[in-house]
Amino acid sequence: MSDSQHRQSFEVRDYECDMQGVVNNAIYQHYLEHSRHEYLKTLGLDFAELARRQINLVVVRAELDYRRSLTSGDCFAVLSRMERISRLRFAFRQQIVRDSDGVLILEGLIIGTALNARNRPFLPAEIEAILG
Amino acid sequence: MSDSQHRQSFEVRDYECDMQGVVNNAIYQHYLEHSRHEYLKTLGLDFAELARRQINLVVVRAELDYRRSLTSGDCFAVLSRMERISRLRFAFRQQIVRDSDGVLILEGLIIGTALNARNRPFLPAEIEAILG
Amino acid sequence: MSDSQHRQSFEVRDYECDMQGVVNNAIYQHYLEHSRHEYLKTLGLDFAELARRQINLVVVRAELDYRRSLTSGDCFAVLSRMERISRLRFAFRQQIVRDSDGVLILEGLIIGTALNARNRPFLPAEIEAILG
Amino acid sequence: MSDSQHRQSFEVRDYECDMQGVVNNAIYQHYLEHSRHEYLKTLGLDFAELARRQINLVVVRAELDYRRSLTSGDCFAVLSRMERISRLRFAFRQQIVRDSDGVLILEGLIIGTALNARNRPFLPAEIEAILG
Repeated sequence: MSDSQHRQSFEVRDYECDMQGVVNNAIYQHYLEHSRHEYLKTLGLDFAELARRQINLVVVRAELDYRRSLTSGDCFAVLSRMERISRLRFAFRQQIVRDSDGVLILEGLIIGTALNARNRPFLPAEIEAILG
Repeated sequence: MSDSQHRQSFEVRDYECDMQGVVNNAIYQHYLEHSRHEYLKTLGLDFAELARRQINLVVVRAELDYRRSLTSGDCFAVLSRMERISRLRFAFRQQIVRDSDGVLILEGLIIGTALNARNRPFLPAEIEAILG
Repeated sequence: MSDSQHRQSFEVRDYECDMQGVVNNAIYQHYLEHSRHEYLKTLGLDFAELARRQINLVVVRAELDYRRSLTSGDCFAVLSRMERISRLRFAFRQQIVRDSDGVLILEGLIIGTALNARNRPFLPAEIEAILG
Repeated sequence: MSDSQHRQSFEVRDYECDMQGVVNNAIYQHYLEHSRHEYLKTLGLDFAELARRQINLVVVRAELDYRRSLTSGDCFAVLSRMERISRLRFAFRQQIVRDSDGVLILEGLIIGTALNARNRPFLPAEIEAILG
């Protein structure tokens, strides 16, 4: 497991809030996904470039604990840590933390793999190199 | 636990697909949410009307198993079943099944509660009546 | 110009509403896009299949008149009519009409073209055949 | 008309791209909306706070010229200028410009007004003060 942790900063945009006046549940997955892709870029992996080569990183399971809500104008960070969990699977442990008071908003465990052009799971060498 | 099951029909819209050519992970949460809200309507509960009365139904945990992907034009159903899991919490077991071949696309367990105007968990009488 | 008109039925989903409690402005473009793609399918053109062949239908201009708002649970139709407006451009005149009272919610004029694999505008034979 | 211009920086997120591998047409409206709201904040107006007071800023017309596409990872700015166009209406002239080469991606003219709690157009004193 990597000891490094990635931190991505965000600010809630009004269109992300729903009629309850808070960020819609699905939007948190967007925040987490964007953070994972930025994290992977810092490790030399570009999700879009892999997709063009028909190597598709995919999520196979997501566990999301919604502890508090974010609302209009809130600034927050997504903290992400990547680890290998089996021969063909890796996981991201992710937390969303509000800037103003350090309160934990959401915890997520996202398990993924990669699919080749024939939709078979495999880990490309670039990911093997990262996971060690 | 209720023996009834709710079924909601959908068709993938092109704007829901991402650069991988399949439905984006977060969009499945939209499908599940819309199905839960329609299900609740059949039970006499309107999410929007509750929100206007400052009774906010909220998700506290989501577990999502992504088994296959949906793509442009796929028709599918979301099957939902609601049950009580504790004094203040209820759960929806939800499945997404593709029409063309009956293949299971996603399984979800969504745990929720309701918050009153002061953000305290409680179950309003209308939900108590449903959960029994 | 075609005399035919396409009609697509929708119901507002709660996640499409924003903190004002009405459908967010950008979402109407999703409704219009989905209607255009379904319309094209009835004419034998599949947007996704064209994209895979590197023929990209693109919007070059949109004029949207927002007359009223849609809200949670509203049922409505998108009416679309396609016409040629120049050698390389076509247009969709689209209206959103609420089912319950026939009120006009939005009028749109969407001008498009197609781009080939080298991003040059052209109209593929399938579209020429439709536009006549 | 104000001489000031507001500039908001963005980076394309992968989930904003559709199956064509470029930012979906509707997403540009999100970029424009977020920029307008941030612009208004610099002028002392908070869209969310106004909504809570039942003063709803609404778009009545949008003209969008799509010149080029943005894709995964592109950095860009939205430039916005606000002006009064009639007693009850104001407009934002907005441009999206790509950072890497200064290319104009989109031009928009967004016309808006405000609605009071009874859905009647009016301009609150705060906006009158800005528009002069």
